[in-house]
Amino acid sequence: MGNVKHHIPEKMLAVRQHKAGGRLVLEEVAVPRPGPGDVLVKMAASPINPSDLGLLKERGLNGAYPFTPGLEGSGTVIESGGGLLGGFRKGKRVACSPQPAGDGTWAEYMKTSVMRTVPLPRSVSMDQGAMMLVNPMTAMAFMHLAREGKHRAMVNNAAASSLGKMLIGLCAEKGIPLINIVRKNEHVTQLRNLGASHVLNSSDAFFDTELKQLALQLEASLFLDAIGGEHCAKLLSAAPPASTLIIYARLSGEFLQIDPGDLIRDDKKIIGFQLGNWLNTKGILFKLKFISQIKKQLVSQLSSHVNREYPMKEVEDALSYYKEHMSLGKILIKPTANS
Amino acid sequence: MGNVKHHIPEKMLAVRQHKAGGRLVLEEVAVPRPGPGDVLVKMAASPINPSDLGLLKERGLNGAYPFTPGLEGSGTVIESGGGLLGGFRKGKRVACSPQPAGDGTWAEYMKTSVMRTVPLPRSVSMDQGAMMLVNPMTAMAFMHLAREGKHRAMVNNAAASSLGKMLIGLCAEKGIPLINIVRKNEHVTQLRNLGASHVLNSSDAFFDTELKQLALQLEASLFLDAIGGEHCAKLLSAAPPASTLIIYARLSGEFLQIDPGDLIRDDKKIIGFQLGNWLNTKGILFKLKFISQIKKQLVSQLSSHVNREYPMKEVEDALSYYKEHMSLGKILIKPTANS
Repeated sequence: MGNVKHHIPEKMLAVRQHKAGGRLVLEEVAVPRPGPGDVLVKMAASPINPSDLGLLKERGLNGAYPFTPGLEGSGTVIESGGGLLGGFRKGKRVACSPQPAGDGTWAEYMKTSVMRTVPLPRSVSMDQGAMMLVNPMTAMAFMHLAREGKHRAMVNNAAASSLGKMLIGLCAEKGIPLINIVRKNEHVTQLRNLGASHVLNSSDAFFDTELKQLALQLEASLFLDAIGGEHCAKLLSAAPPASTLIIYARLSGEFLQIDPGDLIRDDKKIIGFQLGNWLNTKGILFKLKFISQIKKQLVSQLSSHVNREYPMKEVEDALSYYKEHMSLGKILIKPTANS
Repeated sequence: MGNVKHHIPEKMLAVRQHKAGGRLVLEEVAVPRPGPGDVLVKMAASPINPSDLGLLKERGLNGAYPFTPGLEGSGTVIESGGGLLGGFRKGKRVACSPQPAGDGTWAEYMKTSVMRTVPLPRSVSMDQGAMMLVNPMTAMAFMHLAREGKHRAMVNNAAASSLGKMLIGLCAEKGIPLINIVRKNEHVTQLRNLGASHVLNSSDAFFDTELKQLALQLEASLFLDAIGGEHCAKLLSAAPPASTLIIYARLSGEFLQIDPGDLIRDDKKIIGFQLGNWLNTKGILFKLKFISQIKKQLVSQLSSHVNREYPMKEVEDALSYYKEHMSLGKILIKPTANS
């Protein structure tokens, strides 16, 4: 535990991007030194998430280049930059995420705020722990938004994703009808086998009508869009009056095409969702309770299937494979994996 | 007052539209008979509002054709279909609006629910009373939303409209900074003469940068879009993180082009606003207080300038003129006006 001594080298390997949309390269960079309130994590594993794809397209206002991507991962805290909590964390296995605009998890080491580390229970492996923050917290956040907004039923248009599968389990548990939208027939079967009651294929001829009717019948009023473009437009037009459309990813890379009449006449709302922004609106007590709820379900509803793992130096291959096979499970990037 | 006897004919002239987007024609139709809870209003005047233009493009889910347009007006209640309140209203000068999906005010007579009539104080003329509901209530609703959402400053991109001018007065009174966006230099001068402190011309070369800087400086977080298309996109991209964009009209007729990254990364919201939908979420006490606040300001902040009046049979000319000269003041349509 806390008394295991780790040798901290001066240099490390990290995945780096030098400009928005640019190629990823493995480079030697300095190991960051934790300041007060920070810890240094020796990384074990990191997934690729849709939010990483968004970030690789454009970092946004505050992010400089070059930078290390990777929005979550797991590892061991090997150094504290000072502070009571940092001292407690030393030697602990943690799930972790980078600071806003900071370097990420696709590296041998990451410096982050101790507040962005969560100790892993012994029952949770490093692999599962690496995927504990983004998808499980997002899924739980949607459940929270559904309850808060008194929504009777939900619709998700990226239902074959890891997040989509978590929502199927969580909605079944809470008795909230969920309309799952996929783009291939094999996913219809896959999700039905997982216990999903309502699965629609957006490639079907009568999809638009079916979605509209089912949404009305189940009184769905919370619509989750991860794709954008015409897929988003279809959700919005099928949504009953006074529905809320949450944009949480932009897998198609396309702009949203919105009929203003839909919004004005039918009182619909479009809301952007990013986990970090959402959590920032919550107090510390809410966050602690939220994390503890997630830990409880991490080996059941909130576990993700790992499809493959890649060493850091093959990150470009990992990304290409992930984009084409998103519904087969998560890809883990490991500093130590054999190539 | 209540003891003046009105002769009610069997037939009347009304402006009719037979299909979405179709031409307006003057036709002879039956005078509607009020049922219990309804009153019959002998119309005096009706304005053309941007919301009428939206309705003439498409009535929406529940509206059948042919129908009589016109979303507000003034007149005299000449018959009650029964009920205590209807009896009280008889003989009174009122502002009135049609029932949802019902025939509107561009006719010699309109049947509506007594709940959709508001008695006019003696100080308010039929002309001003005809414009008392839509614009004044919308302007006051925006002030309410600004207060409710704790917004420090607002932005409106149809600032030279009657509604825009009301907002200038209301924001000045409440000490809320308002960024007014117009499309012509003559409107910059016009609004400055009305006392507007912040007026930007969207045709200026540096408009995008100026809007962004001014919005940041004033901490504007409530953005009002009446235009759509690229004008909406400019508002959204200039809006600081966590801003709310309200779509309340669609004067350009264009779809909204939304960068999903704007919504996700910066936690922005897009909300449709229609006065009727908004009022439906409020209780009767709120509505009574709201109407009484409006009556108090109807001869000052909430008055509208009348530019021209047209007889019903020239309604197509009135519409064409209105679309081209929206910022010169309101157009009134009158059953009795001379042609």
